[in-house]
Amino acid sequence: MARNTQVPADHNAPPVTQTLATFVATHPSRGWSDAVDHDAHRTFLNWLGCAVGAARHEAADAALAAVRMLDPAPQATVLGRKERVDMASASLVNGITSHTFDFDDTHLKTIIHPAGPVASALLALAEHTGASGRQLVDALVLGIDVSCRVGNAMYPEHYDRGWHITGSTGMLGAAAGCARLLGLDAQRTAMALGIAASQPVGMREQFGTMTKPFHPGSAARAGLMAALMARHGYTASGRALEAPRGMMQTVSTKNDWREITDELGQRFEITFNSYKPFACGIVIHPSIDACVQLREQGVKPEDVERIELKVHSLVLELTGKKEPADGLQAKFSVYHGCAAGLTFGRAAEDEFSDEVVNRADMVALRRKVVATVDDAIDEASVDVTAVLADGRRVHVFVEHAIGSLQRPMSDAQLEAKFHGLADPVLGPPAAARVIETCWNVAGAPELRSLAALCVPG
Amino acid sequence: MARNTQVPADHNAPPVTQTLATFVATHPSRGWSDAVDHDAHRTFLNWLGCAVGAARHEAADAALAAVRMLDPAPQATVLGRKERVDMASASLVNGITSHTFDFDDTHLKTIIHPAGPVASALLALAEHTGASGRQLVDALVLGIDVSCRVGNAMYPEHYDRGWHITGSTGMLGAAAGCARLLGLDAQRTAMALGIAASQPVGMREQFGTMTKPFHPGSAARAGLMAALMARHGYTASGRALEAPRGMMQTVSTKNDWREITDELGQRFEITFNSYKPFACGIVIHPSIDACVQLREQGVKPEDVERIELKVHSLVLELTGKKEPADGLQAKFSVYHGCAAGLTFGRAAEDEFSDEVVNRADMVALRRKVVATVDDAIDEASVDVTAVLADGRRVHVFVEHAIGSLQRPMSDAQLEAKFHGLADPVLGPPAAARVIETCWNVAGAPELRSLAALCVPG
Repeated sequence: MARNTQVPADHNAPPVTQTLATFVATHPSRGWSDAVDHDAHRTFLNWLGCAVGAARHEAADAALAAVRMLDPAPQATVLGRKERVDMASASLVNGITSHTFDFDDTHLKTIIHPAGPVASALLALAEHTGASGRQLVDALVLGIDVSCRVGNAMYPEHYDRGWHITGSTGMLGAAAGCARLLGLDAQRTAMALGIAASQPVGMREQFGTMTKPFHPGSAARAGLMAALMARHGYTASGRALEAPRGMMQTVSTKNDWREITDELGQRFEITFNSYKPFACGIVIHPSIDACVQLREQGVKPEDVERIELKVHSLVLELTGKKEPADGLQAKFSVYHGCAAGLTFGRAAEDEFSDEVVNRADMVALRRKVVATVDDAIDEASVDVTAVLADGRRVHVFVEHAIGSLQRPMSDAQLEAKFHGLADPVLGPPAAARVIETCWNVAGAPELRSLAALCVPG
Repeated sequence: MARNTQVPADHNAPPVTQTLATFVATHPSRGWSDAVDHDAHRTFLNWLGCAVGAARHEAADAALAAVRMLDPAPQATVLGRKERVDMASASLVNGITSHTFDFDDTHLKTIIHPAGPVASALLALAEHTGASGRQLVDALVLGIDVSCRVGNAMYPEHYDRGWHITGSTGMLGAAAGCARLLGLDAQRTAMALGIAASQPVGMREQFGTMTKPFHPGSAARAGLMAALMARHGYTASGRALEAPRGMMQTVSTKNDWREITDELGQRFEITFNSYKPFACGIVIHPSIDACVQLREQGVKPEDVERIELKVHSLVLELTGKKEPADGLQAKFSVYHGCAAGLTFGRAAEDEFSDEVVNRADMVALRRKVVATVDDAIDEASVDVTAVLADGRRVHVFVEHAIGSLQRPMSDAQLEAKFHGLADPVLGPPAAARVIETCWNVAGAPELRSLAALCVPG
């Protein structure tokens, strides 16, 4: 892993800090198509479900215990829990939980999970300040545009070097969104971006620990505080992003400035956001999808003699674990993914519990899965044949898995995913009310009611 | 400015995260010489004076206004002010003020200003938890050792690339110090270092804005929270510093691991800390020092016809401003520095006020200073001759300026500096009591009394 970084400093970078600040401060409310606005609603719903779903995780417990030592004021809701904390701490904890299951959204071009930093900051701020749903949706679209455009400019070099790009661009999206929600002018928005620019969060070495989901949480908090400081006159460099010793040139040797400025205000990065149908690495998704389709075609686990997979080499390289011992290992097992898809017709967090992974029928079914690498199969695809005890063969070819940009999850599928995450925490009726409120969030006069719905009864 | 970064990842780095954690958690209290302990007291006194002195600066006002929006609990003192805020916010604001005047300490080998991040976190935490002065001094020595050793390993490449090394190593020192103060074991201390490692703060582009002093403040806050999270079981990578995609390899292509491990527990970096006698860039210090010496030899401003300086080329490159218009510009004027030294015998923050800078006698005296580059003169030195109206010539050669490691400020000079900073805020009698308390801080049963002395009456 050699790093290509022998590059001279760029002294002629365009003034992207100012360009983004002016865009965020002055772009009209709902200055985009209905399709973009709907994408924002989908992103918001998906983010909220992930945060509520992981509310009882030990990472949330540990983070909240630390926050509680500050004796925080009860300004904002910790989603899926009864505690209320100050809005900065709420943005931290909700950002953590939204990424804890690795089940949140993905901007596929950069592997940024954009909602965590931005939405976590915005809902906490909006809840406390009384901002409207329309203001929140506007700020979400604009904030995500900022972090993903900066990500586009630096990807892949920045990620390859070791940065967890969700946290190292997310503080900019959160700062931009919060500046918009606070109504800051272009000058103060530039200062918010500047203060945030000094706080990129997260290295990839942390993957597999609680500090991975800490990254979007910390980015949310940093962005929110940067906006509050800018509002009160705190200053930063107006060229904090692009200067030779500014953030982007310091943390990346690839910086394609056009990715920030091209079609700004016309093309919105939130339209390239995707949602995971399955709670595991994206490389197994085609295989799980295929097995869900086998089940829909009437294939029953007890009738199966063998499941033959033809996969891209990456699938076995990353997820070739034949006998996973627990839920975490199962997330790296294409064999378990197939068994779950065929047995349950889904593979959400529950299907990766230690208990399910160790069930005798799951162990047996995993052993019937035979995966071989086929160079003709694309990374996004899979070829699956179920060989049944009676000799029948049922074949499914998946070109693009459900959840990809080519085959996005339907709104109904997003609702089902939300229920899977939120029902155990809030109960199905309350979860249904949250879903309905989310689809109509742009019309909400305030967000306190929505936040209150996310507190378990 | 090409950046030398074409280096392969180092897969054989020693386990420095664990080494530092074990050191911080297990090194004996006062496990060093009396001289080291005295250096810790000097560092603490100097830091406290800088923080109190800048308490009324507009950067402190803006940061506090943002913090106040969180409705913080009154856990800890904002030094030099009446407000009390939660301990994390206090560490942020005190870290900001301690660096606002660019008058704090310097670890010359790395240009790290080590006390800001570490002491700001420690005093706020100690005030709230009731820790003793001995615990604070121990944690200060160990925390500063961690940040400066990591800095030694990465300097100069990391700094050259654009990082403000005070903030990008300071969060580690703050986390280490707070972990020690909380009594965490080696395992949890490693987690605190790991969580902090994902939060390097600050780029050099921010120099000249309020975000520069934000860097040590933000690092203090990040380190304190990392320790609190680790205490409650939050996890991070145990190789967060040294892994190929860990912090150090991500933010620096030079990593000399021996700088971290060599003589650990025997050589303490705090002994290489220095204190600025003058409130401006270090490159002018020899010239000011020389003019102070001229004054002590009886040279009066009104008798001077000309002051001839022979200086290193860097002096004019960085501080060659002949006619500064205000205090900020005067900090980059060797001419003003000389005029202040000869007129007042000092050059603290007051001597760089707009009012002093624009006084007619100062303008006239500055114009009598003639500086020429002499290749025989070292960067640390200056050769000065005052030519008087009566034709006499008074000559002073300064090899190392006051404040350097070779000619450290005496304790009495540090006290005078403290009075210059704190008297306008606290009044001279209270400032004197703070000084006395600081010299005896290791014997203090708690630190609330000291913090209370730093609140204006």
